[in-house]
Amino acid sequence: MIVVKIGGASGVNLEAVCTDLASLVKGGQKVILVHGGSSETNEISTQLGHPPRFLTAVSGFTSRYTDRATLEIFAMVTSGKINTLLVESLQKHGVNAFGFSGVDGRTLVAKRKETVRIVENGKQRIIRDDFTGKIETVNTGLLNLLMDAGLTPVIAPLAISPEGDALNVDADRAAAVVAGAVHAEQLVLLTNVPGLLRSFPDERSLIPHIDKARVEAAMAFAEGRMKKKVLGACEALELGVPKVVFADGRIDQPLTRALEGKGTVIS
Amino acid sequence: MIVVKIGGASGVNLEAVCTDLASLVKGGQKVILVHGGSSETNEISTQLGHPPRFLTAVSGFTSRYTDRATLEIFAMVTSGKINTLLVESLQKHGVNAFGFSGVDGRTLVAKRKETVRIVENGKQRIIRDDFTGKIETVNTGLLNLLMDAGLTPVIAPLAISPEGDALNVDADRAAAVVAGAVHAEQLVLLTNVPGLLRSFPDERSLIPHIDKARVEAAMAFAEGRMKKKVLGACEALELGVPKVVFADGRIDQPLTRALEGKGTVIS
Repeated sequence: MIVVKIGGASGVNLEAVCTDLASLVKGGQKVILVHGGSSETNEISTQLGHPPRFLTAVSGFTSRYTDRATLEIFAMVTSGKINTLLVESLQKHGVNAFGFSGVDGRTLVAKRKETVRIVENGKQRIIRDDFTGKIETVNTGLLNLLMDAGLTPVIAPLAISPEGDALNVDADRAAAVVAGAVHAEQLVLLTNVPGLLRSFPDERSLIPHIDKARVEAAMAFAEGRMKKKVLGACEALELGVPKVVFADGRIDQPLTRALEGKGTVIS
Repeated sequence: MIVVKIGGASGVNLEAVCTDLASLVKGGQKVILVHGGSSETNEISTQLGHPPRFLTAVSGFTSRYTDRATLEIFAMVTSGKINTLLVESLQKHGVNAFGFSGVDGRTLVAKRKETVRIVENGKQRIIRDDFTGKIETVNTGLLNLLMDAGLTPVIAPLAISPEGDALNVDADRAAAVVAGAVHAEQLVLLTNVPGLLRSFPDERSLIPHIDKARVEAAMAFAEGRMKKKVLGACEALELGVPKVVFADGRIDQPLTRALEGKGTVIS
């Protein structure tokens, strides 16, 4: 079993991912696909008159400010549009894909960050109406039920709190936690770069391998969104996933290449 | 087992529906919930600069003109927003709801209407880029798998063609076909009126009972959207569902009342 994460971000060749994923599934490989949708949420939020806002936590991480209106738009775009179109494309390629989010059947239960301490104009303040969460449990029984029935799960990055609130979760970290829970052999994070770069954005500076004991040091090379991917890799490794690959999602056969070790392999 | 259809339309008290559905499920009643989303799709389509258009078929029925852009908006709103919020609300009420659309796992397979003969300004013409379908098969194995695992299915009105295209389907008729396929004891169609009215919109003219042999005659009393509900009722009865109830979705305990026979009962 492998867990694959694709961004909704421009650059990843979704058609190539679906074609390749179909050939792997036909070859007997079990796959769980987890997707994001940040950039399309930004576009549609803006069109709907509720432009995206971002928070910078005191830890330095940036995340979407998910008030209730944003949460509903995020659900529309990720669970409604991106998820449906991925399932449709996989079905056209002969994969019996089944799409849902972590809210459904409480597949992903997350702790809501009830207060977020942010830095704004150099000052700290507390945000209390943010619907973002950190996944704590994965309903592996449900994932196995679907996979045993021959279905390929396609998961949108929403989770549910113990109180029943839908929450926005980071898709890279969701993929990592799912990979750990289902004892995946590999977690493949497809991006629009060839992998982790020593000198971003110079693609010739690709780091082909990182020893898992030294993955935290790799954080120093991570720029922007890549920071969360490295954090996801760390979580997956801590949860016992033996191998994480950062791979290029823009090329033909992106998954086959990643499984062959093309990209940045952490093991 | 009962199948319940709720519109996304204004008027239906979703909180009351979820509370009541939860008490029925806790009492051992198996329920499949099918929902629509037309009015909210109209609003969001308009906000996104792609206002809704409607076609009048030569048969006199009116339906949404679902070009590809509309299909994607329809998926966002129904499968992404309405479905997620219903699942969230049911989860808050202790129901382990699981939301998906007919595209997922090919739960609902529909024949695409490749050409639609419409009437426009008194003249007939053919529309070829409409992604609307008529459901032909229901994957009952998948529905039973979920229900046997203690999950309550919440279904958004999209289906998939044999070729793998996502299609917009009428939610009332989807509920009817699902009810027939799972051998439901009853199909309950919740609306924003007390039932079928002899003199629409006079609510005192409620027709309490219609003999199923005479349901087609009831079409004469149906106005606007109610025509499709009566058509759904006819389909469900033909498929062997013994009882269909048109009931008021605005009141407290709308499902309990419907099961008690309040509304228009066709049996």
